[in-house]
Amino acid sequence: MDPDTALALRRLLATRPVASLATLHHGEPALSMVPFVLPAGDTRLYIHVSALATHTRDLQQHARVALLVMAEPDADTLAQALPRVALQADATVLERDSPEHAAARAAYLLRFPQAAPIFELGDFSLVALQPVAARLVAGFGRAHSLVGAALADWLRG
Amino acid sequence: MDPDTALALRRLLATRPVASLATLHHGEPALSMVPFVLPAGDTRLYIHVSALATHTRDLQQHARVALLVMAEPDADTLAQALPRVALQADATVLERDSPEHAAARAAYLLRFPQAAPIFELGDFSLVALQPVAARLVAGFGRAHSLVGAALADWLRG
Repeated sequence: MDPDTALALRRLLATRPVASLATLHHGEPALSMVPFVLPAGDTRLYIHVSALATHTRDLQQHARVALLVMAEPDADTLAQALPRVALQADATVLERDSPEHAAARAAYLLRFPQAAPIFELGDFSLVALQPVAARLVAGFGRAHSLVGAALADWLRG
Repeated sequence: MDPDTALALRRLLATRPVASLATLHHGEPALSMVPFVLPAGDTRLYIHVSALATHTRDLQQHARVALLVMAEPDADTLAQALPRVALQADATVLERDSPEHAAARAAYLLRFPQAAPIFELGDFSLVALQPVAARLVAGFGRAHSLVGAALADWLRG
């Protein structure tokens, strides 16, 4: 995949506000929507989830999750060719009052200022998602997989 | 959930061209994007997938999948409040030359006329996805679950 295409797909992670989150729920795949942020220079995505939500219990019981971020459909792009990024990632709930929690909170609120009141709710936690593999799809039959250092470099943007 | 809200969420299934598809892949959740159609009056969604694709092998080995269809993010809607529908569904590959295959093909091509050439590729199959549960989310903290006859009635629109 050429650098410009890889960069355009990386930009999806910086510009799209929500991802699909797949968790393992009693052995079955389950899906929910999560706003997310990938801070510039970081290799982890951060989500802010409720302890009352099924996906939160799921990822605490089974850390391996999947994320999908898609470009917005438009009339000029075949639905089959919509650019998207699929990630496999491992979830870690961040400890409140830890430095990484403070940094993730700041990055999250920079991306979603209107979410500030939600941080006042006691049952919400920040979860870090560390990608272990990425599938970049630039169009119909135009896919590229990334792992390891190449994945980390791409995530850092 | 009031009827207008349920109808607005049902409309997402008629108007959004793509869904996130979660499959079970070697025991882990995996995500991909799929264009889909839910024909008027039908209770099953149909996708057109390649035998070469991981999600196709996954759903043939483990029929229970999850789907997520989201409204398009806009500046006026909090990302956390984006309307969406999550479905648990059971996948069945449709037999070529069966009446249900012909009906699904017609409905799919009505929705995605540009996909006609893909039907000429030998390795693509139509898969029916029968929802067994739906989670309708109209906004922040505004969720409603549907199963059974209520789910079927809602799917028929």
